[in-house]
Amino acid sequence: MAVYTDVSDEDLQHFAAAYDLGAVVSCKGIAEGVENTNYLLQTLPDGAALPDSYILTLYEKRVSPEDLPFFLGLLEHLAANGISCPTPIHGRDGVALRQLCGKPAVIVSFLSGMWPKRSTPQQCGELGAALAQMHVAGASFEMQRANDMSIDGWRKLLDASRDRASEIQPGLADVLTAELDYLAANWPQDLPSGVIHADLFPDNVFFLGDSLSGLIDFYFACNDYLTYDLAICLNAWCFETDHSFNITKARALLRRYAEVRPLNAAEFAALPLLARGSALRFLLTRLYDKLHHDETALVRPKDPLEFLARLRFHQHVDEPGAYGLDPTLAGA
Amino acid sequence: MAVYTDVSDEDLQHFAAAYDLGAVVSCKGIAEGVENTNYLLQTLPDGAALPDSYILTLYEKRVSPEDLPFFLGLLEHLAANGISCPTPIHGRDGVALRQLCGKPAVIVSFLSGMWPKRSTPQQCGELGAALAQMHVAGASFEMQRANDMSIDGWRKLLDASRDRASEIQPGLADVLTAELDYLAANWPQDLPSGVIHADLFPDNVFFLGDSLSGLIDFYFACNDYLTYDLAICLNAWCFETDHSFNITKARALLRRYAEVRPLNAAEFAALPLLARGSALRFLLTRLYDKLHHDETALVRPKDPLEFLARLRFHQHVDEPGAYGLDPTLAGA
Repeated sequence: MAVYTDVSDEDLQHFAAAYDLGAVVSCKGIAEGVENTNYLLQTLPDGAALPDSYILTLYEKRVSPEDLPFFLGLLEHLAANGISCPTPIHGRDGVALRQLCGKPAVIVSFLSGMWPKRSTPQQCGELGAALAQMHVAGASFEMQRANDMSIDGWRKLLDASRDRASEIQPGLADVLTAELDYLAANWPQDLPSGVIHADLFPDNVFFLGDSLSGLIDFYFACNDYLTYDLAICLNAWCFETDHSFNITKARALLRRYAEVRPLNAAEFAALPLLARGSALRFLLTRLYDKLHHDETALVRPKDPLEFLARLRFHQHVDEPGAYGLDPTLAGA
Repeated sequence: MAVYTDVSDEDLQHFAAAYDLGAVVSCKGIAEGVENTNYLLQTLPDGAALPDSYILTLYEKRVSPEDLPFFLGLLEHLAANGISCPTPIHGRDGVALRQLCGKPAVIVSFLSGMWPKRSTPQQCGELGAALAQMHVAGASFEMQRANDMSIDGWRKLLDASRDRASEIQPGLADVLTAELDYLAANWPQDLPSGVIHADLFPDNVFFLGDSLSGLIDFYFACNDYLTYDLAICLNAWCFETDHSFNITKARALLRRYAEVRPLNAAEFAALPLLARGSALRFLLTRLYDKLHHDETALVRPKDPLEFLARLRFHQHVDEPGAYGLDPTLAGA
């Protein structure tokens, strides 16, 4: 939960005057999201009885300004292709990306729905279908962004944390080094690629009841193996708080995904390795954040060891059917 | 900024089902307020095109449950008497105060407007008029609540902080002890009393442009001298960030107040002392919070010394006209 930038009324009025949204009648900081500052903005168009809702986002230091055209272009492209996601609102001059309080800022459409604190198998199935639809819609998006959180990025994170990893758990550095070496030597070279979300945790997926109503927070989106995105969702959605694997959720996720975009044989076979890789990715970022945490910051670091438990699970998976998807249903 | 209690979807749906508000379509934690957990709740009544907004509040440990009937009754009374403030929404069973996640919880009406990061003299004038209207409307409210943040409360706070006050500023304990002794010996005994807000800082007052649109956060409301509430506003609204006194703002505040509710001679004469008392009150609570701050908490303590600067200003005021109000305009 975090609001890093307080916006004064004068600055907000001046900013909103560039849009054709009506008068600003409310603007409240949202206590969610750790990367950017988000406000729930309400405006009242002339003659309207009830206000319209939007999200005003100020991009803080963890988002590179040079990546914003990719992120915003992707949101526009996905929305135009039927994906429910925040859509940048353009000012009267046609511009969507502006400056507010010296930071890049946009207004995007508001999505109804709530993210699930405890997901259901039905929700995991909905997620699978929506992820596949996003991958299909993204195929026609022409911009590219490399995944800086893939193997090269993991090595940098590990180098920055290795000396102090034992503060979190004795022997952790050796486990991570061995795993990274293994993944680097065995990472697949030729899987279908495209635009992936790369951070589709439950707090980035909205539901109305069990129906998925939208995907948000595309600020790790990049080009990578589509099945790697699916492996991230396995880690993010299909383990319980006691770190046990919930195969019912995984089966629902994978089956609904494959109904929309079938996996080829190589993708199906790569699932355990991609799941190890994505577990290592979040383990390394959480480890880095925990070791380099500013104690005065308003965000509490998440526990890296949750992902060590997932990594150990995947290390012991000896065939991809263990995730609950029959190879004949994968489409492979 | 703080959300102390995460509400699961199931708990929220069950809670909302007691009301006649339609389906919950959004519920976002608000990064404002340090006492309670607040969510901006949106519901869609059957057949409506746009959702209605409400505030869902869960009362955390700093609000005593036994005080809630006073606070909620006051909000209902003030709203019924024309004051723009959050109004408790009743369930189909007529009940407004319920339990959610094991905590007392209410849904209240949503107020448009934004609190001013930098107030204008015009806004201070609006505040004065609204404060006086609130005092007039509160006169017919029959419940009572003692002010536990008056002289006896200050002494408890000082006792709990005296030994470590020098960590904040050398000699601070002596200054505070002498001031409290002076105020206890000279505190007025017979000023007009009634329901006061007791915490009307800028973040508790909403504006649409320069027009006041509502008062919020009545969780320090109590019975005390009405002019003490005005003295709190002098401290909260009429000093700049460099601690200089802005007499233009103070004059606007006092004049618009006195137009609605004239001050009698004793109230006018007591302004400097009441201003000292309210400066000491916020100095002592901020000092306590700073010395007893949990470093892992998500709320940063405010600087107590801002109110030492105000206290020193008021100590050097030798006649109430120094606040900008002509005695003939006070109504005295």
